[in-house]
Amino acid sequence: MTEKSFKGKTVLITAGPTYEPIDPVRFIGNHSTGKMGYALAECFAAHGAAVQLVSGPTGLHTNHTNIEVKRVTTAEEMYKAVLKRADAADIWVFAAAVADYRPKTVADKKIKKAGDELTIELVKNVDIAAALGKEKEEWQFSVGFALETDNEAANAREKLRKKNLDMIVLNSLKDPGAGFAHDTNKITIIEEEATHTFELKKKSEVAQDIVDLIWKRTNG
Amino acid sequence: MTEKSFKGKTVLITAGPTYEPIDPVRFIGNHSTGKMGYALAECFAAHGAAVQLVSGPTGLHTNHTNIEVKRVTTAEEMYKAVLKRADAADIWVFAAAVADYRPKTVADKKIKKAGDELTIELVKNVDIAAALGKEKEEWQFSVGFALETDNEAANAREKLRKKNLDMIVLNSLKDPGAGFAHDTNKITIIEEEATHTFELKKKSEVAQDIVDLIWKRTNG
Repeated sequence: MTEKSFKGKTVLITAGPTYEPIDPVRFIGNHSTGKMGYALAECFAAHGAAVQLVSGPTGLHTNHTNIEVKRVTTAEEMYKAVLKRADAADIWVFAAAVADYRPKTVADKKIKKAGDELTIELVKNVDIAAALGKEKEEWQFSVGFALETDNEAANAREKLRKKNLDMIVLNSLKDPGAGFAHDTNKITIIEEEATHTFELKKKSEVAQDIVDLIWKRTNG
Repeated sequence: MTEKSFKGKTVLITAGPTYEPIDPVRFIGNHSTGKMGYALAECFAAHGAAVQLVSGPTGLHTNHTNIEVKRVTTAEEMYKAVLKRADAADIWVFAAAVADYRPKTVADKKIKKAGDELTIELVKNVDIAAALGKEKEEWQFSVGFALETDNEAANAREKLRKKNLDMIVLNSLKDPGAGFAHDTNKITIIEEEATHTFELKKKSEVAQDIVDLIWKRTNG
């Protein structure tokens, strides 16, 4: 195989969790560390791409000159940052674990402990990958991520179609050593007419596998 | 003033946030970084105390040989870890930002996105400082922390009495540069018959102010 160069290509990547505020102190978060998204950003950058990384709250940093980082907190902020950058990007990689729901109202002062029970009403956030899927041009390539704890492959294939994705990377929470907070991951890549399974490996190697397959599809 | 030694004393400190799981992926958290609690642990250890540090999820680490770290995630886990260590400790410092409420039920599989709205029912967690206050012996000294965005001093004084605390450290979210995520903090220390206000300073220096005052009270 010839050298896989993404020179001249712009890649938009989302990474990390989003935090949805309940009040100035509390939030609803998720256990995404952003490691997979940052590994993808580094890998694309190493192959010559100009990377736009939209990152939720993580402790991670990157110094690669090909990577421009925009930090956001909420799903709404991530959506706006992605919208701004999507038109100019050849490849979209939605690796962030975006909150599906946010509190309906955000208290501007810390909610004081009162009754024995408390109810938080949530409303749906925009599905960023799905919203972008409606705007996707013929020359753009869109990669989604799915994390399922049940009926993994069937759910992932449904998302592939509904969100107008070209490829979906499936993380299973069932595999020990895979998913959140680990430095290793075990993925399955699902395309319209193919399924690729991979062994448990370091996230930097998983990123390389994903980038290889995207290169084949966009240069094949 | 003579050298403030805590040699022979055991200090129990809680630090960081707690995360209350909604399902295997999502949780309710808060913006505590644990920096204040860890700074206190380091300061007490430097003054010769044997420190038991019960830490919620943070990216912080400590290598001081006088500090033994027990890591926990939820308020319930923190309560159990504190109960186990409280009897043997001379001084309790409740610097953690413990979640007041947790989801009533925890889904064992990731909750799938369904309707436009979702409601999470929460139930009250044990108030660790208050529960321990009921067990406190004459020779034990208990320090609480309060973070208020309204009626700070009045609320803090109420907590002092209700939780049988000897001292309360009040953080205000109103002071720029103070509180969560900053390396500086501005505190007020409230005792039954005194109020001490301090300038904005580094958290390590704030820790020293708190430790000084505890030393005076327990050795005065």
